[in-house]
Amino acid sequence: MKKVAAVIALSVGGALLAGAGKVEDAKLLEEARKYFQPLPSVAKSETNPVTPEKVKLGKMLYYEPRLSRSGLISCNTCHNLATYGVDNLPTSVGHRWQLGPRNAPTTLNAAFHVAQFWDGRAKDVEEQAKGPILNPIEMAMDSPEEVVKRISSIPEYVELFNRAFPNDRNPVNYENIAKAIAAFERTLTTPSRFDDFLRGNTEALTKEEKEGLKTFIEVGCASCHNGVALGGNMFTRFGIVEAYWNATRDYVTLEKPTMPMDVGKFAVTHKEEDLYVFKVPSLRNISRTYPYFHDGSVWNLEDAVQVMAKVQLGKELSKDQVKKIVAFLKALDGEVPKHALELPVLPPSTKETPKPVR
Amino acid sequence: MKKVAAVIALSVGGALLAGAGKVEDAKLLEEARKYFQPLPSVAKSETNPVTPEKVKLGKMLYYEPRLSRSGLISCNTCHNLATYGVDNLPTSVGHRWQLGPRNAPTTLNAAFHVAQFWDGRAKDVEEQAKGPILNPIEMAMDSPEEVVKRISSIPEYVELFNRAFPNDRNPVNYENIAKAIAAFERTLTTPSRFDDFLRGNTEALTKEEKEGLKTFIEVGCASCHNGVALGGNMFTRFGIVEAYWNATRDYVTLEKPTMPMDVGKFAVTHKEEDLYVFKVPSLRNISRTYPYFHDGSVWNLEDAVQVMAKVQLGKELSKDQVKKIVAFLKALDGEVPKHALELPVLPPSTKETPKPVR
Repeated sequence: MKKVAAVIALSVGGALLAGAGKVEDAKLLEEARKYFQPLPSVAKSETNPVTPEKVKLGKMLYYEPRLSRSGLISCNTCHNLATYGVDNLPTSVGHRWQLGPRNAPTTLNAAFHVAQFWDGRAKDVEEQAKGPILNPIEMAMDSPEEVVKRISSIPEYVELFNRAFPNDRNPVNYENIAKAIAAFERTLTTPSRFDDFLRGNTEALTKEEKEGLKTFIEVGCASCHNGVALGGNMFTRFGIVEAYWNATRDYVTLEKPTMPMDVGKFAVTHKEEDLYVFKVPSLRNISRTYPYFHDGSVWNLEDAVQVMAKVQLGKELSKDQVKKIVAFLKALDGEVPKHALELPVLPPSTKETPKPVR
Repeated sequence: MKKVAAVIALSVGGALLAGAGKVEDAKLLEEARKYFQPLPSVAKSETNPVTPEKVKLGKMLYYEPRLSRSGLISCNTCHNLATYGVDNLPTSVGHRWQLGPRNAPTTLNAAFHVAQFWDGRAKDVEEQAKGPILNPIEMAMDSPEEVVKRISSIPEYVELFNRAFPNDRNPVNYENIAKAIAAFERTLTTPSRFDDFLRGNTEALTKEEKEGLKTFIEVGCASCHNGVALGGNMFTRFGIVEAYWNATRDYVTLEKPTMPMDVGKFAVTHKEEDLYVFKVPSLRNISRTYPYFHDGSVWNLEDAVQVMAKVQLGKELSKDQVKKIVAFLKALDGEVPKHALELPVLPPSTKETPKPVR
């Protein structure tokens, strides 16, 4: 009799506990939904509709090294889809091995951002795509005309532009090159288990990940890292509580010991309020897109979380808090879309194609 | 009555012509089979059996930029499978933008060659794969140990090596890295319409291509470009009839006006008979693997055919001969194997992974 009673008591207790867990989960979900939204499968655009023809062409151009002066560097060189749309380097290597000033952000889910580049100087991926091709320390093409000359010398490309932009009289132009690349990028979305959670499946996250999510919100991370991309939708000063370089300089490698302070958006606007202001980066796939921050100074995700808490929130997190937050962040990892990983075979150059210059 | 007779006469004439064509085709096929063999689907190896586990791992390593000092350059940088296993540059760009001394040959069908590199200094793809990783002007890793340190710091790789080399006690070693890459390369075969022809389907080539094949044999190209890869199976002096640089220097770009003469195999053996001797390159996919020759001096296939006839055979080909030969050469184009074009997602580095050095 005693035994049976004990079993009943245990079951009831278990059910109660499970019930309590469910209530807690529901509360957490409700709270999370205030900050975050599930990732759409495509980042739509009013002005650049995503069509299969444009995506096909855009993928080829994304992998196309002839968009660079040297004929060696493509979008995929720095935004390598085999490594989650980044090069995993502090800052990128460009034409004639020039080093870029800022860490290359991932192209995955980038189209959801409010603006492009760390300082937001391009309004969308369409505008962004036009930058690196002409940047003398990146792909270093001389002019949009030079780019168009290369592409239009290749009949297969001309045909693909005709199909992708059927209403244009002269579809091979610099705008459309950027539009096609951007259309491809608008398909680079990486839904994760966290999206399943946000859609109502509270079992999609482990206990530790849910504790991490709770901590992430409570500590204050979600005040900047929110929305569909957990970031990418606002600008803020890097170093609200204390100068960021005080916290990151311990991590800076010997390779660049004297790198000057980066003034962020100030360099674009020259407004005092924009001094050291950067776009808040997305945290999706953050475990794969090391090293961290605009200067790529910190390689380790645990360290990056600590630095963030310190300079943005003025908090020293416990090891346990960091562990939980990192567990949650890893639940944001998705998969690189299959179609993006199918390397396109690029059409051959012709006699008319201008030669690469190394 | 007249009309009917005329129709009958025409039919008989047509049949006779078709019959004559068949006889000619059969003769050409017989002649071609003396020189060429169809391409096997895999380049087998006694000492490095091609297994699915090894090929999977090898493909990842082929696309792995962490095999280079900078963390930027992979095998695929210079042997880009999106462009038929080459970079379409005169010579390749390596660590810190150093330019290589010779044109990067394609990895497609390379495993069928009698030896690797233009001077044959590696006996097979297994030995070849160990070269560029440590070459200071290519991927520039310090030592085999440094390479193994990087790879063995990544648990996913350790697991993949365990599976690919189940009988090895410590499978993550430099030999096995090369063996895995080579096993992948042994699957990079590109059967073409010419192989269908060699197997007996004389309709697989057009009339012009068959005339090109005939010319190719008659002119003497097939005396060096033969076997399964139409090349790759012997060494010969570049410039038998006259010095190659007399014929190619008109094509040399402003970029490298003072490039010294390349002594070829002589640099390896120091034997006089090896002066200006190079491996005969394969002509499979030759229309895609421009620019041509060890120095990448000639961009146009028609020009390359002319130069070859001149300096190797002492012949001046007619425009028509060149046109036909080029038509035949294009019938050697195959397709890059699908599995090779599926970009692998690479496992992340860990705290133990040594950092890249740019």
